[in-house]
Amino acid sequence: MKLATYKDGSRDGQLVVVSRDLTTAHYATGIADTLQQVLDDWSFLAPQLQDLSVELNHGRARHAFAFDAARCMAPLPRAYQWADGSAYLNHVELVRKARGAEVPASFYTDPLMYQGGSDDFIGPRDPVVVASEAFGIDFEAEIAVVTGDVRMGAAPEQALDGIRLVMLANDVSLRNLIPDELAKGFGFFQSKPATAFSPVAVTLDELGDAWQGGRLHLTLQSTWNGRKVGMCEAGPEMTFHFGQLIAHICKTRNVRAGSIVGSGTVSNKDWARGYSCIAEKRCIETIVDGKPQTGFMQYGDTIRIEMKGRDGQSIFGAIDQEIAAPA
Amino acid sequence: MKLATYKDGSRDGQLVVVSRDLTTAHYATGIADTLQQVLDDWSFLAPQLQDLSVELNHGRARHAFAFDAARCMAPLPRAYQWADGSAYLNHVELVRKARGAEVPASFYTDPLMYQGGSDDFIGPRDPVVVASEAFGIDFEAEIAVVTGDVRMGAAPEQALDGIRLVMLANDVSLRNLIPDELAKGFGFFQSKPATAFSPVAVTLDELGDAWQGGRLHLTLQSTWNGRKVGMCEAGPEMTFHFGQLIAHICKTRNVRAGSIVGSGTVSNKDWARGYSCIAEKRCIETIVDGKPQTGFMQYGDTIRIEMKGRDGQSIFGAIDQEIAAPA
Repeated sequence: MKLATYKDGSRDGQLVVVSRDLTTAHYATGIADTLQQVLDDWSFLAPQLQDLSVELNHGRARHAFAFDAARCMAPLPRAYQWADGSAYLNHVELVRKARGAEVPASFYTDPLMYQGGSDDFIGPRDPVVVASEAFGIDFEAEIAVVTGDVRMGAAPEQALDGIRLVMLANDVSLRNLIPDELAKGFGFFQSKPATAFSPVAVTLDELGDAWQGGRLHLTLQSTWNGRKVGMCEAGPEMTFHFGQLIAHICKTRNVRAGSIVGSGTVSNKDWARGYSCIAEKRCIETIVDGKPQTGFMQYGDTIRIEMKGRDGQSIFGAIDQEIAAPA
Repeated sequence: MKLATYKDGSRDGQLVVVSRDLTTAHYATGIADTLQQVLDDWSFLAPQLQDLSVELNHGRARHAFAFDAARCMAPLPRAYQWADGSAYLNHVELVRKARGAEVPASFYTDPLMYQGGSDDFIGPRDPVVVASEAFGIDFEAEIAVVTGDVRMGAAPEQALDGIRLVMLANDVSLRNLIPDELAKGFGFFQSKPATAFSPVAVTLDELGDAWQGGRLHLTLQSTWNGRKVGMCEAGPEMTFHFGQLIAHICKTRNVRAGSIVGSGTVSNKDWARGYSCIAEKRCIETIVDGKPQTGFMQYGDTIRIEMKGRDGQSIFGAIDQEIAAPA
């Protein structure tokens, strides 16, 4: 099934079930008001939503209405955890190579992850509000999963069983704030503003055999100012699958229902596939020409992130945002 | 008023109002079930809780019962944000000095903060479960505030107005995991397991003139295995006040209701006041003797963290935890 959260003026919005083709939707009223509620009590509530989803897909849901991604908040408008990996090692290799550094051997066995802010996500069509263009505004196109409860010490294969939903993310980064911030030694903080997520989050069965062993084998499309800049394969080059990322968190703590875990920027060794963040393009330029040519995003720029199934249909709906100055 | 969350088998527990002297409590039923609900709608719900608090303090609340800190979850058993500072620069100076490094000048004007996991806090009397003693188990005694909504770009003085509640924290750290983790460049992750908070969270009026300009001018007591190891002054040496810490988050994003912001380990220049984390004791030993003498915590060790008002009464109740192996 496919789930979305409609804006209704409240902090957590209103849960809706969306048809497979993203044309119609139905309020989940009577089953659950919010997605977090469903994640808190998945085994009881998910089957009821599934029944509604079947009715909706067969055109039999009585109060269905046209689905509008512009009315969506993030599927979880706020969450108890947003832990983002950097699971495509090619991205890390490019960043390091551009500054003449090696990738430590441990990076191929021990995932890189950072803890992100999760109190104020933005919807798929909301503007990305940044105080200054000088911050170096960049998009990052990613895959993200939403988990149930996964206990401390869980192995990667056990952790895979804790995945409830999959969605896309735009993990906005403020590149020019990163060097000074990382130099302080405590990781990203101001350099990671509010993250956006796709209109819908979907259960694994919606992905068919494109979901294999904790990886999503489809193409992630990134379109910057109307120009397709990335057609990146999300599956084969994901060094750590989602079970490994979740198990990394579980080494020292429990992961609780509604945690969101991100893949990091999707990245391919074949440069012809383009890029899922501008920083990577700039790294390639630096490696080839000695310096970056491409600038970061400016006010009014747009970024569209989408993934299509093998049938050519959009799976999650599109993230489609404009960069904006504060009001 | 003083607020706590009683265990009831649910994820968010049951909100209770606690008397000023911590002897009696009353369910907030009819006003709000959970603390997050109150934070989401503070101006409407807080006055109702305040009325109940007055009744309780005057012994007039009809269904009052004896308050038991052992029945408490963290005041917010899970939260949408846990951002922890390192606002006592003396702590940073000691850590750097012990390894022969200087504190960068920028550290005195730009707060150090890290984003912590907030999906699974532990209660004030819950065991600290750690998979291995070899991780280097340490307590960190801190002050923490809970915020309302604070908008992006808020100045420190504006951010102070967003503080709703104050509590104590034990920001457990796994010291032996930190060097490798920070060397990866993305900040703390596995080295920060679940954080514990004091039995009650209190509004600023409960602190009287001990709360001044975003700092709490009282003594934070840490007792390790029954021996008082820290009697640290939390006020004068807090380099950045809580308004500055919140404003640091707000530079690039909104802070939403229910965010928890921590002070970092309370630390004093006068070594006679003891320590609020073992790492600091080890730094002092290294500076004096060339190497640390004191080991980290072992299974069965206890840590008690408490703060008393000028009247000698416990303000927040005590965090009192035992270190434990997984079941």
